[in-house]
Amino acid sequence: MKFQLSAVDPQSSARAGVLSTAHGDIQTPIFMPVGTAGSVKAVHQRELEDDIRAQIILGNTYHLYLRPGIELLEKAGGLHRFNGWKKPILTDSGGYQVYSLAENRKISDEGVTFKSHIDGSKHHFTPEGVMDIQRAIGADIIMAFDECTPYPCEYNYAKQSMALTHEWLARCVKRFHSTEPRYGYEQALFPIVQGSTFKDLREQSAEFIANQNQPGNAIGGLSVGEPHEDMYTMTSLVCGILPADKPRYLMGVGTPENILECIALGIDMFDCVMPTRNARNGMLFTTQGIINIRNERWKDDLSPIDPTLGGHVSTFYSKAYLRHLVINKEILGAQIASIHNLTFYLWLVREARKKIEEGTFASWKNSMVKITSQRL
Amino acid sequence: MKFQLSAVDPQSSARAGVLSTAHGDIQTPIFMPVGTAGSVKAVHQRELEDDIRAQIILGNTYHLYLRPGIELLEKAGGLHRFNGWKKPILTDSGGYQVYSLAENRKISDEGVTFKSHIDGSKHHFTPEGVMDIQRAIGADIIMAFDECTPYPCEYNYAKQSMALTHEWLARCVKRFHSTEPRYGYEQALFPIVQGSTFKDLREQSAEFIANQNQPGNAIGGLSVGEPHEDMYTMTSLVCGILPADKPRYLMGVGTPENILECIALGIDMFDCVMPTRNARNGMLFTTQGIINIRNERWKDDLSPIDPTLGGHVSTFYSKAYLRHLVINKEILGAQIASIHNLTFYLWLVREARKKIEEGTFASWKNSMVKITSQRL
Repeated sequence: MKFQLSAVDPQSSARAGVLSTAHGDIQTPIFMPVGTAGSVKAVHQRELEDDIRAQIILGNTYHLYLRPGIELLEKAGGLHRFNGWKKPILTDSGGYQVYSLAENRKISDEGVTFKSHIDGSKHHFTPEGVMDIQRAIGADIIMAFDECTPYPCEYNYAKQSMALTHEWLARCVKRFHSTEPRYGYEQALFPIVQGSTFKDLREQSAEFIANQNQPGNAIGGLSVGEPHEDMYTMTSLVCGILPADKPRYLMGVGTPENILECIALGIDMFDCVMPTRNARNGMLFTTQGIINIRNERWKDDLSPIDPTLGGHVSTFYSKAYLRHLVINKEILGAQIASIHNLTFYLWLVREARKKIEEGTFASWKNSMVKITSQRL
Repeated sequence: MKFQLSAVDPQSSARAGVLSTAHGDIQTPIFMPVGTAGSVKAVHQRELEDDIRAQIILGNTYHLYLRPGIELLEKAGGLHRFNGWKKPILTDSGGYQVYSLAENRKISDEGVTFKSHIDGSKHHFTPEGVMDIQRAIGADIIMAFDECTPYPCEYNYAKQSMALTHEWLARCVKRFHSTEPRYGYEQALFPIVQGSTFKDLREQSAEFIANQNQPGNAIGGLSVGEPHEDMYTMTSLVCGILPADKPRYLMGVGTPENILECIALGIDMFDCVMPTRNARNGMLFTTQGIINIRNERWKDDLSPIDPTLGGHVSTFYSKAYLRHLVINKEILGAQIASIHNLTFYLWLVREARKKIEEGTFASWKNSMVKITSQRL
């Protein structure tokens, strides 16, 4: 896996690059739509490619392991063949999902025992097992198995948890590099920086992760409820330590504002359920600001959803029609809003990339943050 | 509105024709996807046109009147402009929906008072009002306001109900022909034959309806729970009375078998929620028979949903992937299954039309009924 920087913004740490994988090149900075169980909710694969112009999507190890299960994914020849998505796929390690299970999981040094949210059945994840599972899923980018600390988090818990994450990482690296890709193409492992919102822990963790010398690095444990300022402080600190010649992935982030600010801090990759989850509740991100389509205000607004954005759904369907669909719980409402929001997110990172290449990112970012975070 | 027969099957009463409307020609026999509240559930408008190859869709007066409401539809310039569907639209009159409300409606000679299923608010439909509403929706084909009798139904109730439907029809015809289209294009009124499963009532009603001399005629009150043999007997009887030079529309029918059998009896138009509603529960109609995709049997069947049918979703997605989506309640499962089933229904009527034109419909129909109704 190769990463080539093509431009660095003169007035911020924003970078434009190309990450080359066995399933194609990814222009960075990039946003990765989340396809939890092998489907980006309410979106067809061809819409992801043709309308949204996604370059890489996410899958969730926890969900895919439970259903459809690794046996079937192996039989299909990996997730790409199972769901028909031919571009790169990144899988998270399941650490975050298992952490979310709260009382239904038990963490030990060895790994995590948890109960399935589907049928209550018991399962055990270890760093080694999770490497094998992600190899079997056929992800192009495999995430290390970590513990994601909640927010707020006691210093001592965060410190112990970070130590555990580092121990697990060593086991992940060992297992990953002693096993082969399953389907004949290259897979890469990204380790994850933890350390909650404590500067000294984040520094230690970033140094530990940088020393692993893997082809890309991630920052986890942010966007879990901390103030945005903390997210930016930690991200900036960590970006200063992680190597500049490798892609940096900020996990689970975020709003358009978060993404623009973190691009400015040197982040190259993002993922978040927000554009799709909020779409299903009628929240639209547009080139003019944020719209709650359920509001009375849009009731008889027959103008297109977002003509400036372009793309089929955003210009073909009107705000009033979409509002009607969302209010009436028509499935098509979730479909239109999801495609629209993802189209917007991918447009946003493409625009950011253009501005970085033109050397005008910093000032564009400041005005864009204002526009995209205002409520219409 | 013109109807031109192009072929009649030598061994059955099946006909091929073209119904010309202001929004384009419709090749008959035709199946009309149901878009209750202005959206065919889980299907984009461009998918209806490009993938499913629908030629006309249905809207429901009852639902559209409640939401988004006539005022907004008028402001948009009719339903076509509101939802972006540019081909013909037929609206049912709301008679069937109001009848379904059971204790929440009261029928008098004047009309029907009912409570909204959404907010319990009180409303009143009259034959005249329902003509005005459908004019305002901008339907190409407007259905008369009738009472749809349940099954089973006492003879006396069916007789009185039929008399009421006929009285209302006279009022519908009067109102319709004393009012103008709202948006500058032709609209046509189709009256509806009632009479439950009683031959003498069906005969009387068919004669009454034929005498109205409208550009098309419909058969209502079937597919409400009666044995299929009764449906076929009544349809055959009524088709023998309704004029041959006008399209005949059998409302709310049905399974692929029902459709093929009723094409053989002289029906030209069909609608039914079955392909979309059953799709959402995982029931697929295919060129090989009926599939319940939730069954264990399809768990690791990585073959396309229906390669013989063709079309994007039926060849791109596998049975195992669709099963995974449906079992996990992923929205994409409903989307794929809905598009697939509607593609199949439209394929079925196109094939029927081809066979009628070739003069081989009757024998093809018999084999096709067997294939499409077997459970795989």
